[in-house]
Amino acid sequence: MKRTLGTCYYPEHWPEALWPQDAERMVEAGLTWVRIGEFCWSRIEPKEGEFNWDWLDRSIEVLGNAGLKVVLGTPTATPPKWVADKHPDMFAVDIDGKPRGFGSRRHYCFSHAGYFAESERIVRAFAERYGQNPHVAAWQTDNEYGCHDTIYSYSASAKTAFQAWLSAEFGGDIDALNRAWGNVFWSMEYNNFSQIELPNLTVTEPNPAHVHAFKRFSSDQVVAYNKMQVDTIRAQSDRPIAHNYMGRVTDFDHYKVGDDLEIASWDSYPLGFLEDRVEASDEHKRAFAHQGDPDFQAFHHDIYRAVGKGRWWIMEQQPGPVNWAPYNPSPLPGMVRFWTWEAFAHGAEAVCYFRWRQAPFAQEQLHAGMLRPDSQDAEAIVEARQVRDELQSAPDVAPAQAPIALVFDYEAEWSWAVQPQGQGLSYFQLVFDTYRALRKLGQSVDIVPPSCTDLTGYSAIFAPGIMHLNDDLKQALSAADGTAVYGPRTAARDAHFNIPNPLPPAIDGLDIVVSRLETLRPDMPIALNGKGHVIRYFEELNTSEPIMMETSANQPVLVGQNGQLYCAAWLDDDGMMAMVEQVCEISGITTVELPIGVRRRETATETFWFNHNSHASETPVGTIGAADFVKRSRN
Amino acid sequence: MKRTLGTCYYPEHWPEALWPQDAERMVEAGLTWVRIGEFCWSRIEPKEGEFNWDWLDRSIEVLGNAGLKVVLGTPTATPPKWVADKHPDMFAVDIDGKPRGFGSRRHYCFSHAGYFAESERIVRAFAERYGQNPHVAAWQTDNEYGCHDTIYSYSASAKTAFQAWLSAEFGGDIDALNRAWGNVFWSMEYNNFSQIELPNLTVTEPNPAHVHAFKRFSSDQVVAYNKMQVDTIRAQSDRPIAHNYMGRVTDFDHYKVGDDLEIASWDSYPLGFLEDRVEASDEHKRAFAHQGDPDFQAFHHDIYRAVGKGRWWIMEQQPGPVNWAPYNPSPLPGMVRFWTWEAFAHGAEAVCYFRWRQAPFAQEQLHAGMLRPDSQDAEAIVEARQVRDELQSAPDVAPAQAPIALVFDYEAEWSWAVQPQGQGLSYFQLVFDTYRALRKLGQSVDIVPPSCTDLTGYSAIFAPGIMHLNDDLKQALSAADGTAVYGPRTAARDAHFNIPNPLPPAIDGLDIVVSRLETLRPDMPIALNGKGHVIRYFEELNTSEPIMMETSANQPVLVGQNGQLYCAAWLDDDGMMAMVEQVCEISGITTVELPIGVRRRETATETFWFNHNSHASETPVGTIGAADFVKRSRN
Amino acid sequence: MKRTLGTCYYPEHWPEALWPQDAERMVEAGLTWVRIGEFCWSRIEPKEGEFNWDWLDRSIEVLGNAGLKVVLGTPTATPPKWVADKHPDMFAVDIDGKPRGFGSRRHYCFSHAGYFAESERIVRAFAERYGQNPHVAAWQTDNEYGCHDTIYSYSASAKTAFQAWLSAEFGGDIDALNRAWGNVFWSMEYNNFSQIELPNLTVTEPNPAHVHAFKRFSSDQVVAYNKMQVDTIRAQSDRPIAHNYMGRVTDFDHYKVGDDLEIASWDSYPLGFLEDRVEASDEHKRAFAHQGDPDFQAFHHDIYRAVGKGRWWIMEQQPGPVNWAPYNPSPLPGMVRFWTWEAFAHGAEAVCYFRWRQAPFAQEQLHAGMLRPDSQDAEAIVEARQVRDELQSAPDVAPAQAPIALVFDYEAEWSWAVQPQGQGLSYFQLVFDTYRALRKLGQSVDIVPPSCTDLTGYSAIFAPGIMHLNDDLKQALSAADGTAVYGPRTAARDAHFNIPNPLPPAIDGLDIVVSRLETLRPDMPIALNGKGHVIRYFEELNTSEPIMMETSANQPVLVGQNGQLYCAAWLDDDGMMAMVEQVCEISGITTVELPIGVRRRETATETFWFNHNSHASETPVGTIGAADFVKRSRN
Ligand SMILES: [Zn+2]
Ligand SMILES: [Zn+2]
Ligand SMILES: [Zn+2]
Repeated sequence: MKRTLGTCYYPEHWPEALWPQDAERMVEAGLTWVRIGEFCWSRIEPKEGEFNWDWLDRSIEVLGNAGLKVVLGTPTATPPKWVADKHPDMFAVDIDGKPRGFGSRRHYCFSHAGYFAESERIVRAFAERYGQNPHVAAWQTDNEYGCHDTIYSYSASAKTAFQAWLSAEFGGDIDALNRAWGNVFWSMEYNNFSQIELPNLTVTEPNPAHVHAFKRFSSDQVVAYNKMQVDTIRAQSDRPIAHNYMGRVTDFDHYKVGDDLEIASWDSYPLGFLEDRVEASDEHKRAFAHQGDPDFQAFHHDIYRAVGKGRWWIMEQQPGPVNWAPYNPSPLPGMVRFWTWEAFAHGAEAVCYFRWRQAPFAQEQLHAGMLRPDSQDAEAIVEARQVRDELQSAPDVAPAQAPIALVFDYEAEWSWAVQPQGQGLSYFQLVFDTYRALRKLGQSVDIVPPSCTDLTGYSAIFAPGIMHLNDDLKQALSAADGTAVYGPRTAARDAHFNIPNPLPPAIDGLDIVVSRLETLRPDMPIALNGKGHVIRYFEELNTSEPIMMETSANQPVLVGQNGQLYCAAWLDDDGMMAMVEQVCEISGITTVELPIGVRRRETATETFWFNHNSHASETPVGTIGAADFVKRSRN
Repeated sequence: MKRTLGTCYYPEHWPEALWPQDAERMVEAGLTWVRIGEFCWSRIEPKEGEFNWDWLDRSIEVLGNAGLKVVLGTPTATPPKWVADKHPDMFAVDIDGKPRGFGSRRHYCFSHAGYFAESERIVRAFAERYGQNPHVAAWQTDNEYGCHDTIYSYSASAKTAFQAWLSAEFGGDIDALNRAWGNVFWSMEYNNFSQIELPNLTVTEPNPAHVHAFKRFSSDQVVAYNKMQVDTIRAQSDRPIAHNYMGRVTDFDHYKVGDDLEIASWDSYPLGFLEDRVEASDEHKRAFAHQGDPDFQAFHHDIYRAVGKGRWWIMEQQPGPVNWAPYNPSPLPGMVRFWTWEAFAHGAEAVCYFRWRQAPFAQEQLHAGMLRPDSQDAEAIVEARQVRDELQSAPDVAPAQAPIALVFDYEAEWSWAVQPQGQGLSYFQLVFDTYRALRKLGQSVDIVPPSCTDLTGYSAIFAPGIMHLNDDLKQALSAADGTAVYGPRTAARDAHFNIPNPLPPAIDGLDIVVSRLETLRPDMPIALNGKGHVIRYFEELNTSEPIMMETSANQPVLVGQNGQLYCAAWLDDDGMMAMVEQVCEISGITTVELPIGVRRRETATETFWFNHNSHASETPVGTIGAADFVKRSRN
Repeated sequence: MKRTLGTCYYPEHWPEALWPQDAERMVEAGLTWVRIGEFCWSRIEPKEGEFNWDWLDRSIEVLGNAGLKVVLGTPTATPPKWVADKHPDMFAVDIDGKPRGFGSRRHYCFSHAGYFAESERIVRAFAERYGQNPHVAAWQTDNEYGCHDTIYSYSASAKTAFQAWLSAEFGGDIDALNRAWGNVFWSMEYNNFSQIELPNLTVTEPNPAHVHAFKRFSSDQVVAYNKMQVDTIRAQSDRPIAHNYMGRVTDFDHYKVGDDLEIASWDSYPLGFLEDRVEASDEHKRAFAHQGDPDFQAFHHDIYRAVGKGRWWIMEQQPGPVNWAPYNPSPLPGMVRFWTWEAFAHGAEAVCYFRWRQAPFAQEQLHAGMLRPDSQDAEAIVEARQVRDELQSAPDVAPAQAPIALVFDYEAEWSWAVQPQGQGLSYFQLVFDTYRALRKLGQSVDIVPPSCTDLTGYSAIFAPGIMHLNDDLKQALSAADGTAVYGPRTAARDAHFNIPNPLPPAIDGLDIVVSRLETLRPDMPIALNGKGHVIRYFEELNTSEPIMMETSANQPVLVGQNGQLYCAAWLDDDGMMAMVEQVCEISGITTVELPIGVRRRETATETFWFNHNSHASETPVGTIGAADFVKRSRN
């Protein structure tokens, strides 16, 4: 596999006279890819049915002739005002019942039939015109599904679609739904599907089964909408199709969207994410303010390698300060190169910088680009050129299967959100905490989806917190050669969010019953025998299994044998490290406790050592400078 | 009086085959009472006018034949979807103008005439069918009025009803209302009652007289709604009627609802309450996370003894972790027994555990029961059996009048809420602080309503913060044999929320005028001469009365003589202890400063010493274990 | 200029029999002015077209005959219910789309044509009746524009008016608007002006150009509304007209409103402001809880001297505790006198106490007056009498131009609010921090508007943060004799909120380009060489100018020469002091570092030393007691 670079460009923002110079400078900087088109609907179709393709034709021509490959985006994330005026009820409706209107982007409800049809129409127009264009080498559908909290809509369209979705799920049998949801509980029984409301604006919490179904429905709507775009493009084009996912957007199942696409890509903004979606102490945020969290990007790289079934890109790479986080620092010198290589170390085919030139107008004026608004080189283009040079001496690479698998299940994320049982408990955080501990011990990790049926080759498989465990994965974990680590909350709910009987986890070969569980204030740690603590969440087990970790009061925490282990608690950092280390040890995995901020990652032929710190660090391969890395051949 | 146990059961949730076993196990565990029916409307009347009584007939028969007494609830807290569809405007409307719709419970507006009529109809149906049923030994109206903030509704129905209520109050004279409210102030004068809006969605704060009236009106709507149910049941049944109040729900006058009922009961969830409605430091919350606050339950026991005019129950007793607090810990081993006995010590006739079996579906899946979802014994049933055994050797008891009375006035709670004058100041907290200080000094306390006219037998009566002091209570306090302690804010407002002239408190025999008052940031304590501080709220007095407590700058804090005292400030814990101790001393009440977490309570024949700590404590009656108590005969 | 006192009085609140006594007591207390009428619409016109002038005629007569001068307010801040019922869509609509209805005050949308006409009608009625009344010596329009966040309205009326305003601004050319706003960015282009929405309820942030235009529009609506009142009054009366502005209300351009008025006045509530709108540490708030912030009032005094083009009053002076802040302490003894003299030291013509007598009813029951509700003297009248006596021996005074000018630009405040780029960054705070540092160095300061074209006589001019620098001010600063201090963010945006090219600041004679900027968490200070730190906001400069301040890593912070300096950062208190001190030094301004809480202020003939502390302070003019001041003749 070749490693390539690219950028995101908006020819419609700049005088046509600049296009050739821009294209030439992109090529000079070593870029292969240029993504365009994804917000340009109002310039292509300024009024209904009046198309204006010329400028886009010419810009593709200019870019392609300069030697760039075009990734063409469909413009459906930004329908123009006339579309909104034609369909005044096309907006998503927020949980308080307010329409989310025109004036920015992503102002549509996935369930609105009229907008679905408009989307299909404009995508078909793009595909028909450019499906065979020699410069268009790939497609992108829409832009960042779910960004700005746009998956859930409480609109009339969504209600109707939800009722139909439920009717299909229950074969039109409303009594089956009432039974499955336990609607007898508070006289919530329905007489027919058209009585079903969306689960907002209730007096106290709605039925968790109701909310859970709504979350599954909402995800399916995204899958269907994306599939419509994919099918429409495919009818005209054989180029690979990608979507650019956004960091920590978990409201739809990325695997299912990814199943319809050739390539997964994501938009990596390490500094913005650290400030606005990484949960960490102030001390941690200060230490990594100019570099980003040491694990957050890597975690997403590994997720999207799974979502893309091996093929994945960075579609948007932060090039400097952004504009949208609570605070927007500058990256440390060298960070853009560092982030690029980190992505390559996790198997990225391409890293595209967002954006080519900082726009002096509209919402992202203070979002850096590779160029300043006055077209002068900004820091990012200088570092991109360094990567260009480094890539020239770098051979093609292949990924390697990691020794450790970690299951990430979008439905589990929704389940925990429906019923955290304690403030601040999230599935994402549980998996990420596990991932971080493994990385601090020097491990490369493969994220695997819950649909995974073959765990061959993994020495250990961590599957924390999967509240509804499907039969295939259950079987695969039982049959795995490596150590399977379950819990907490494994199989705690059935498909319709009920507690199963026999009680969870009900795993063959493990004599464990969770007889009771409690959640605790974060300031009430329970000491372990050994280092670390249980925090926040704790299950009481009835078990005859051997105890591998316990509290200082001898309550079991990690139990099991024969490669089947169950962890009954949320662990703090030290506790998680101790647990993970013990699992690695019994699984024959060699660990190395890395210095703070240092991480290791292996491809088939290389070992990378990354120093995320703002100071030089001593590592097993010698001193590594701030924001720098070492690449070694694996021997 | 016999002390009895019970549970809350939902036969409609379980296969009929389980009913006999459940009944038998209830009896075995020593239970007398089983409450059923309060959420079952959709099973009794699945469609309008189609009644399905058979299952309820049979379940009452099964339970009754096993020897249990049934408390039958009216199902009006959970109208089915068809009722809501029939009356689409029956929902309460929140303060932002959003309807609070179907999908959980308590989704009705007390002022909606259509729902009032539906309620009357279904209650009549229940009463006609079961009014004379030999197994139905008591009734419960609705469920937890006010839970989930459901007293205030800003609906069109509420507006119309409020206008009518005001017209009645002012004899149809709009000028009288304008004068009483001071509507001249900002040209808020009305020309007629139909112009009056509800006090929400104003630009800045509405007239406090307007808000105060709306609060009184809203309380009256609850009283009327409950009275409708009571009258309907009484027409068919001579069994006692109860309502199950919820902890720290103060938006309606419980005394007035209680006046129409034979029994008061409340739902006691010590661990949930500690996390979500007790105001205390993190340290305190950690120390009592598994036991509950040492005074919060006792305070409610004493309130409901007053509300029930002596007859009161726990209708729902927490049996294990609940599902609804920010964090949901497990009770310490022994706590369920402890809470049960604490209720008995305060005079409870019955303690019913909620619920019999943990439900594996719907909103309360993680709310513990006496049984696990798989029907195995949970902790609570084991501890209930211990109480059963202990009760067998316990004689019948009678309550004793306490030496100290503490007035709790719902209207004062509303008045402070309308006009706290400083963030975080609440009447509930003021009274509770007083109560806690008395308890830390070993006292048993009687809560008395503001309608109390006879204070005979009390050595001291505390009446803090009663902003509108009615003439009867004023007279009773003046005439009391014991020491009457007023202030702060006593008689600060007239019936329509105006400052009286002469200025407050204007108490006969006390030469005191509050000439000015200030509120302060909580971090600005004012030292007292002696231990403790004034915090948050302080009145400047013009007074010639003897000074009993003063600040270090010699400003009067507690003044008065001849058994009439006035406290001009909010006091911190130490200050409150000092004040209360001084009052006890001059009133001839013997105090004993108890260890942290230890409390004492006396019945006519017993003295109980309760250790709320998670560790053993040394007490005047010897060491008491964690979550344990000692019961002694009074000599 | 004479210094005078006054009060705010509501004859309609009190029995007519009290009026003569009140008037007599006002005169006795040394008051010259009595403001009346501004909330009395419902008493003047209780029903549409039915006027009732008699009581107001008589009250003006009583007050005037006692020797008082009347300031007559127009009653438009409180339209009666019948006006609201006649125009049910006259309410402002909040950013969530909720109408802000009747029941308090300021319940109108500035863009509602119907209410505009009603206002004109009632103002004309007042002006016709009292325009020539011998006792009416001045007018006040409306009351506290913008108080309770009432400038922005998202109503249908506002939308229509905004579209018309934009059409006028762009000469009816929608393409010009699209280009100016960069609407191509996310396909936000409009086909015509009637498509333009208000910038609320968008999915993510709206276009900053859109929001910025809406803010300018909203300010213009206030100016137009006030001008309508002024024109209407002027047609009937030659008395000076004032408006009473409220502290830290910056949502409209006070200079532009002030241009149509003879007098600026403001409502000064030092204790309320400290709690609810001064940004400061808890320690600072505790230290000044009973005195108010040492600079906040002075800053407003200096603003309104500019707004009033030299003529300014305190229309409402806090006399004791207020009712509306989170906490409402009492002023220290002497503070009312202190605040009065502080206003005089800054050039006030009159200080009027709000209110004469504390009202026992409605919203402001706990807002102190000069009298208690029972008509007894409160603290304020006693201190007013002391000022009365002190004024008798004080000669007439004249203001003096200060050596230092500080530009305050309302549009810059809106620009920073539209795009802070980091949480907590506000233009107001930046200017206020600069002002505070100057005051701690003993300086008197003149605030000047951005329309200022003549900076003659100033040794230094600070113009921080003016994001859009108009040509005239740019020219004036360049040409100034004194030192001009720009930055940060100077000229960072053009008139339509785009980044200019060449890049900012693009100031003639300064070789500086801001090549990148970052914002930082407040807990990430960057040390300066010397004392102090850069915090929160930092620009990277490309510059060849001499460096006058730099970070410990030698990044430039203050650069420039020849009396033109640019500051590239937000500075903490020490850093700001260091910067300001250095500027003063090179500008030939003598500074004196004053003790904490002590401030100095000079008029043409006097030097005042104010001790804002609650304890005596040692100062260069000797010990000054708590809440006291020293007045010296300038020599
Ligand atoms: Zn993006
Ligand atoms: Zn309950
Ligand atoms: Zn005011």
